[in-house]
Amino acid sequence: MSHQRITKTPPELLLYADSESDADMLYFGGVFVPDPFIAFTCRGARVAVVSQLEFARVRKEGRFDEVLSLEELSQRARRAEGDAFHHPESVIALLARECRIRRFRVPATFPCGPAFRLRAKRISIEVAEGALFPARERKTDAEAALIRAGNAAAAAGFRAVEKLLRQAQVRNGYLVHSGRRLTSERVQEVVAIACLGHGAIAANTIVAGGDQACDPHCRGSGPLRAHQFIIVDIFPRVSKTGYFGDMTRTYLKGRPSDAQKALYHAVFETQQAAIPAHRAGRSAAAIYRSVRRAFDQRGYPTRRDNGVPVGFIHGLGHGLGLAVHEPPRVNPSGPRLRSGQVLTVEPGLYYPGLGGVRVEDVIRVTPAAPEPLSAHPYRWAW
Amino acid sequence: MSHQRITKTPPELLLYADSESDADMLYFGGVFVPDPFIAFTCRGARVAVVSQLEFARVRKEGRFDEVLSLEELSQRARRAEGDAFHHPESVIALLARECRIRRFRVPATFPCGPAFRLRAKRISIEVAEGALFPARERKTDAEAALIRAGNAAAAAGFRAVEKLLRQAQVRNGYLVHSGRRLTSERVQEVVAIACLGHGAIAANTIVAGGDQACDPHCRGSGPLRAHQFIIVDIFPRVSKTGYFGDMTRTYLKGRPSDAQKALYHAVFETQQAAIPAHRAGRSAAAIYRSVRRAFDQRGYPTRRDNGVPVGFIHGLGHGLGLAVHEPPRVNPSGPRLRSGQVLTVEPGLYYPGLGGVRVEDVIRVTPAAPEPLSAHPYRWAW
Repeated sequence: MSHQRITKTPPELLLYADSESDADMLYFGGVFVPDPFIAFTCRGARVAVVSQLEFARVRKEGRFDEVLSLEELSQRARRAEGDAFHHPESVIALLARECRIRRFRVPATFPCGPAFRLRAKRISIEVAEGALFPARERKTDAEAALIRAGNAAAAAGFRAVEKLLRQAQVRNGYLVHSGRRLTSERVQEVVAIACLGHGAIAANTIVAGGDQACDPHCRGSGPLRAHQFIIVDIFPRVSKTGYFGDMTRTYLKGRPSDAQKALYHAVFETQQAAIPAHRAGRSAAAIYRSVRRAFDQRGYPTRRDNGVPVGFIHGLGHGLGLAVHEPPRVNPSGPRLRSGQVLTVEPGLYYPGLGGVRVEDVIRVTPAAPEPLSAHPYRWAW
Repeated sequence: MSHQRITKTPPELLLYADSESDADMLYFGGVFVPDPFIAFTCRGARVAVVSQLEFARVRKEGRFDEVLSLEELSQRARRAEGDAFHHPESVIALLARECRIRRFRVPATFPCGPAFRLRAKRISIEVAEGALFPARERKTDAEAALIRAGNAAAAAGFRAVEKLLRQAQVRNGYLVHSGRRLTSERVQEVVAIACLGHGAIAANTIVAGGDQACDPHCRGSGPLRAHQFIIVDIFPRVSKTGYFGDMTRTYLKGRPSDAQKALYHAVFETQQAAIPAHRAGRSAAAIYRSVRRAFDQRGYPTRRDNGVPVGFIHGLGHGLGLAVHEPPRVNPSGPRLRSGQVLTVEPGLYYPGLGGVRVEDVIRVTPAAPEPLSAHPYRWAW
């Protein structure tokens, strides 16, 4: 193979990550590995380098064409480099030599330590602009079904919450269940148990009442009050597949005020109206802006009150799949939508003193009406 | 401030990561943020840059001295750079100019995309050799208590498993509980529920029977057989604190063979003997080697059988804290132990056909006897 031929070949992909937290690696290899490992392409083949601890399992469960032994390669790289041996870059350099790879393409998240050292070894490292696997954004029917399963777990969580709310009593302004004040922590636990029944882990579930909910990523803690909004945001990950669901409902146990009723309806009606706007070819930024405008027109401005952002203070939605937040974003700089993208639709309004409301469902973009991937009723007052 | 003075100052730390999967970021900021954000030091102060979505919460819950608005800084960086604006490096460059920082020190895991671009902007990026926060390795009393809480959750998991084993019956060679074959998945669910009662998420729990257990990271699936070893490895993360527990017990329901009894005792006795060897000043590599030697001497060699690694095929232990696997490693290249390190002690033996046995506890290294951070009985035959 001539030198010229080699330099003309396109770069090979290179990843170094674990596949429990790194969605690209899980997408590439299809197997959960808890520690970072090397994976790359070599003329169309997918190759992984794993320790003997993972070897048999990765070969059996993964979608790699070839699985190499980290111990063997490390030994040989150590022989070649001596004291200059450094993991993982010495092993990658050895592989590059043996596979005649001059150029690697890596995700922007590839760790800079190895990246700098590989460049110092005159191995070309090109950083992918945007997604390493653009196909990850456009979900197949099989992937849509797996996300639907994640949302089925979330829906089981909501049913469990609603059972608690139905059974709870209001005493001295607090929710009381089984003789004790109902807390965010208890509701989070009940949600997690319900999701486990669907093979899914619901970590970091948000159960935030009153002003806690005005920090949209506050998980919530302590006793839940009656007559206040409680935002419940459940994003379970199905253990076997790694795909997430992501849904939000907002509840109120007790007597809602007129202002609370109006706030709920503003969010709910805007969400329902926004869902069909998600069509292939439409601008995500425009959809976001139309929601913000709808809130403005209903008298729910987004602004700063004494330095605190209030109103519609987050994006309208985000991609969902092997990561709970992935491209594209439906926000002021969102792109044109494309068929197959799976998106959350989750407008929310937050006003300290009045509370927060968010309603979230998941759809798949098509050229026509979006395909719903989540289903659960919207009863909010209990 | 003269130019000379500036170039002499030590580099400031710079991180860009989320704090749910990145333990350094969680250690630095003390608050869970699900998406990557910028954090850095500036003359002794810890600074975070977060979106308005996180702003109030990070200011309230985090241990940052200053929290800056990502939206404001992005707007200004965009004005300065126009089309060349690129997140996060344009914002970091702006901060570097305004805080007069010329050199940043980053962890090796810092994403290479921004790292390359920052260097192109003539901002010096030094990669930390080894740990960014060496103090993370040596746990305080408060941290030891949090790890103990993680192990209390794991112990609750074992109690739940043992209850199942006690109640289970053996029918046609399988375990039967509540009229159905007991599966790995059902046991994983029961473990997760028990851990939730301790405020902890037990993801990826290993419940691997028979030869499944010979792949030490195989989670296990399907019906569990009687008369075979079942490895149960539980590493729950306490939701509020982020600290992990990590414990393993091996069980057998039915009649153990003499070979199984001998295998169990070899692992258990070796583990019990290895625990007190973990003292400050001792070489982790030597402790590992002594365990491997002990297995060899008992007639349990580590080797390849038809290409398959068998015997003691993984390290003896690893650091435990905000990550489930963190430095140091107790393996052939392990360092000298230091007081305060929290380590798992988890020898295991794996022989397809006979099965796998692993027993794991957690200790904190001291100059004298190690401090146990896990507690649960070792009854294995049920």
